Amino acid sequence: MVYIKNPYIRYIRRKPWAVIAPVSVIVVLYFFLFSSSSSLSSSSGSKNSAQSSPKYNYNTKSRRWFAKNRDSIILKNLPSDHISHYDLNKLTTSPDALAKKEEVLILTPMSRFLPQYWANLQKLSYDHSLISLGFILPRNNDGDVALKQLEEAIKDASTNNQLKYKKITILRQDSNSLDSQLEKDRHALKVQKERRSMMALARNSLVFTTISPTTSWILWLDADIVETPETLIQDLVAHNKPVISANVYQRYYNEEEKKNAIRAYDFNNWVESEEGLKIAASLPEDEIVVEGYAEMATYRPLMALFYDANGDQHTEMALDGVGGGAVMVKADVHRDGAMFPSFPFYHLIETEGFAKMAKRLGYEVFGLPNYLVYHYNE
Amino acid sequence: MVYIKNPYIRYIRRKPWAVIAPVSVIVVLYFFLFSSSSSLSSSSGSKNSAQSSPKYNYNTKSRRWFAKNRDSIILKNLPSDHISHYDLNKLTTSPDALAKKEEVLILTPMSRFLPQYWANLQKLSYDHSLISLGFILPRNNDGDVALKQLEEAIKDASTNNQLKYKKITILRQDSNSLDSQLEKDRHALKVQKERRSMMALARNSLVFTTISPTTSWILWLDADIVETPETLIQDLVAHNKPVISANVYQRYYNEEEKKNAIRAYDFNNWVESEEGLKIAASLPEDEIVVEGYAEMATYRPLMALFYDANGDQHTEMALDGVGGGAVMVKADVHRDGAMFPSFPFYHLIETEGFAKMAKRLGYEVFGLPNYLVYHYNE
Repeated sequence: MVYIKNPYIRYIRRKPWAVIAPVSVIVVLYFFLFSSSSSLSSSSGSKNSAQSSPKYNYNTKSRRWFAKNRDSIILKNLPSDHISHYDLNKLTTSPDALAKKEEVLILTPMSRFLPQYWANLQKLSYDHSLISLGFILPRNNDGDVALKQLEEAIKDASTNNQLKYKKITILRQDSNSLDSQLEKDRHALKVQKERRSMMALARNSLVFTTISPTTSWILWLDADIVETPETLIQDLVAHNKPVISANVYQRYYNEEEKKNAIRAYDFNNWVESEEGLKIAASLPEDEIVVEGYAEMATYRPLMALFYDANGDQHTEMALDGVGGGAVMVKADVHRDGAMFPSFPFYHLIETEGFAKMAKRLGYEVFGLPNYLVYHYNE
Repeated sequence: MVYIKNPYIRYIRRKPWAVIAPVSVIVVLYFFLFSSSSSLSSSSGSKNSAQSSPKYNYNTKSRRWFAKNRDSIILKNLPSDHISHYDLNKLTTSPDALAKKEEVLILTPMSRFLPQYWANLQKLSYDHSLISLGFILPRNNDGDVALKQLEEAIKDASTNNQLKYKKITILRQDSNSLDSQLEKDRHALKVQKERRSMMALARNSLVFTTISPTTSWILWLDADIVETPETLIQDLVAHNKPVISANVYQRYYNEEEKKNAIRAYDFNNWVESEEGLKIAASLPEDEIVVEGYAEMATYRPLMALFYDANGDQHTEMALDGVGGGAVMVKADVHRDGAMFPSFPFYHLIETEGFAKMAKRLGYEVFGLPNYLVYHYNE
């Protein structure tokens, strides 16, 4: 192939970002239907046994796809049975999501499998047949181990007939994933950028691959979140916000006071500050502002510090940055294009960049300072 | 609900971008399977007639979903028949896409239905059973008319058994779509920003809703493109680039020379220039640079002007901005997060902003100056 070599053309090239490789090589999909969808069961999948069946039967297929959209309207019946029309005009996002049977997609990037995460997930009281799950695991040893454990957990729940989710999707990330890191190393300022850039790519792959036309809400739930109220989904959607983040705390044993206690964990839920904006303005284009490091004191009001044990758990506060611990997002925010920047976007990346992007798309971002979920304590 | 009113918090709010409303209210899906997938036909969809079938049969479901991935590997057979594992490790993007049976998703925002567009689409020689189609239509009078015509065309092709696509998805955009505009008005500098911002949202909704785990390539093909080589898909994938754009020309009758002729049409395929960067740097944050207007002379090298009738049609040139006429994108570029900014992104929006975003994600962007496709001449 010939490249035009015209002196008039400046070939503006950037060195490909070496750490970033295309994503999503292994896709493992599990489909779980429900006894209530028994209308959708089909004859054997073997080629021979289906000889007597009609070659085309789209009605069945379509009904299966939209199994939960019982109030779909069939616009017209075309002469052939090849085609079905479905009007999903009723796809809503509303505070009473459960009553309206709105579908929720729970997305979790997972580099380790915590049984407590899984147990907590199973206990969520939102109708599981309206929930789809999506996981993405890094392509490294951690990911291999976590995948095996996740599969085992799914298998166990399935065997006990406790698995009622609409669909479970598991992706493997095709990147040179960072190797396992100790807690302290994982948080070192210098590795934050690379780590969170990889995480952003993982999140984008996950949401692009799993969002369906029937998804109303997306709950980003980190694999390290081991305790939430059972009504997590209902509680978050009740606020009916485009983006709303719970406050991530951690249980620990207070050695001095000799008792169990809680402490703030996730400092990525914040309100922008004059200092933060000044620091951002002073940085080279490709540098990022990260929260919670003394080297970079933003003096941003951090939601983690606004927790009031006696306060109303429905208290809302407007945010400019969010973490990924437990964030409910209206699917239309993603459909409009809100993604997780893996590159500095207004000097922000990943979930914090996502909040900025949602705001650039015209959406407001909120947090619930008194609504706690708990991060694993390793 | 209570808002925290703490003087420490600056409530940074932006007026929601009034023109931007959530998208994708009506989703109309057509599913087309193939006689080769007759193994996938299923028993009647009616609830009663399925009583004797097993309540769960995921093998069938999964096989249908991955009907074309015949070389999927079943990782393990779990004890129950609830679960099937599929290893899609072989999802590739390669120059010989057809030989490898790579799936292509053709996406078209459509505000008017041109029979010539449809006829050209039907003539594409890539295996239609590997092609899915996705359309998004504005929620206005134009959209209503176009939807009716598109449905009619699909119905006709279906009746004649000429419709072999894997899947067709039609979305209606839930926005206050701009009303119909005359060609000259549509291109007026002052309406460009709003029009293209809406278009960006439409494109994002479309790709987020239609990309599947099995999609290898995405061809953005505008509804005004009425003539392409029949080998369009094969020709573009042969270059094996993350993003590659054809050169959009237009046929017209040259009154002076009294003969049919062609002329450059799409000036959004360009290479960045010093002037362009200077203009961008001089603009307020929320202003955009648009190409092809005397008011804003960027002196960017425009691919449209590099067409050489005697040149090799495989000639490539690196680009910094692309138009949406006929652009082939590796699905992983979108999965990594590349979307169409509806807000100024480096002072660029829509397809031009998309090219910048792909580059920020580490991908290179190319064009084919001597490979022509033709825009409708109204």
